[in-house]
Amino acid sequence: MKIFMEKIKLIIAYDGSGFSGWQVQPGARTVQEELQKGVSQLLGNPVHIAGSGRTDSGVHAAGQVAHFETEHCRVPVEKLPRVLRGCLPPDIQVRGAQRVPADFHARFSAINRVYRYRFRTRPLYPFERNRFAYFSADVQLQKLEQLLAVITGEHDFTTFSLKDSAGESRVRRIHRAVVEEQREGFDIVLEGNGFLRKMVRMIIGSIVSVYSEHDCTGKFKTMLEAEDNSKSGPPAPASGLYLERVDYPGEIC
Amino acid sequence: MKIFMEKIKLIIAYDGSGFSGWQVQPGARTVQEELQKGVSQLLGNPVHIAGSGRTDSGVHAAGQVAHFETEHCRVPVEKLPRVLRGCLPPDIQVRGAQRVPADFHARFSAINRVYRYRFRTRPLYPFERNRFAYFSADVQLQKLEQLLAVITGEHDFTTFSLKDSAGESRVRRIHRAVVEEQREGFDIVLEGNGFLRKMVRMIIGSIVSVYSEHDCTGKFKTMLEAEDNSKSGPPAPASGLYLERVDYPGEIC
Repeated sequence: MKIFMEKIKLIIAYDGSGFSGWQVQPGARTVQEELQKGVSQLLGNPVHIAGSGRTDSGVHAAGQVAHFETEHCRVPVEKLPRVLRGCLPPDIQVRGAQRVPADFHARFSAINRVYRYRFRTRPLYPFERNRFAYFSADVQLQKLEQLLAVITGEHDFTTFSLKDSAGESRVRRIHRAVVEEQREGFDIVLEGNGFLRKMVRMIIGSIVSVYSEHDCTGKFKTMLEAEDNSKSGPPAPASGLYLERVDYPGEIC
Repeated sequence: MKIFMEKIKLIIAYDGSGFSGWQVQPGARTVQEELQKGVSQLLGNPVHIAGSGRTDSGVHAAGQVAHFETEHCRVPVEKLPRVLRGCLPPDIQVRGAQRVPADFHARFSAINRVYRYRFRTRPLYPFERNRFAYFSADVQLQKLEQLLAVITGEHDFTTFSLKDSAGESRVRRIHRAVVEEQREGFDIVLEGNGFLRKMVRMIIGSIVSVYSEHDCTGKFKTMLEAEDNSKSGPPAPASGLYLERVDYPGEIC
């Protein structure tokens, strides 16, 4: 008997501050596990959910993407976001769902990922903790843009990667790296075909560490070109980081 | 023996989502109690902290004001904010401290209070929950400003007060009631000489409830003039409300 499997893509937002990151791990509260519990409970059978990539402990998402396969989805797919509200904790939200072809894979089909890092340029209020990072310098956005130009394009990002990511290629392409001014701070938005583990936080942390130095752009370029992660600045706190969007070929939603 | 007492004014910010409001109550976690614990621990003797007013469960503050008296403050007053960090939980922060005259009273000396209510005009992300409220209508800020003009000036705010506030005068003056456009929503800022319990949330909730109706400004005016709290709309959620500032005569800080 042939069983017809459906593949469903989810767009997921979460407040990362209550999670030990995306990936299931024993004894820790993770987004993937909570999602699997919620979806499995709704469908009445155990479901494995594959994400577009891991996010670290404390990192937020506005548009994480994941997929799962199920024998039959009793709930009309367009109603999944609403119905899942009752099966998920308040810090996870499914914002979109659609049926996708069998060859879709949340991780391997992704062609573009967008991260946003949010800074306040004055001390954080308690209601902003776990949501922003504090940038202490009297910031010049133009200078930040010059720094961001260094990483735009295709580069080996070994400097901004973890030692244990050995083996795999560390070449990635950053299509777009911009600063967006906000009322009480600024955001840095990075868009690229892929990001190594901790890469965004190490890039941002390095920018912060060189920012006040003489010839910071030159120093940042030297860091990148060293292809040596002992040259990186300390990673910026997870609290300011948001996975904003993941794009797929020929996408409509 | 005459004991010299010092009076100290604090400016306090908090994330209201983890508190059952400002005021001490048995079996509940409150801002006043946590502050009293922290300051008492630092000074080595029990301290009573008087606030400018209560905030309800879930309401935030960027600039709540309180005062306390102590026999001798061993810590230089300008260092209190920094030193208190180690004695307070991460959802309360003392942002300012100064010595004040003996006749200062955080509540009775206040001449002006500023509240901010924050709306997003698209569904909230999980990392925005407890921080904003959702305004579902396609909002016209000009229409909101017309509604706010109704409550500007001196009025009897019985409609927007709780039944149990009987006895006291319900006349208050709102100096300023404006809308501030934000990137993904808007804020309503109310500034006045005093606010009754739940008054801001009942005003905002009533504005939301009449907004989509024909002649909403006329209806809102009729509500206010009824001086009858059964005519109010339901209070807006606490999550969107921030006590922004409290002002005192001849203030410098």
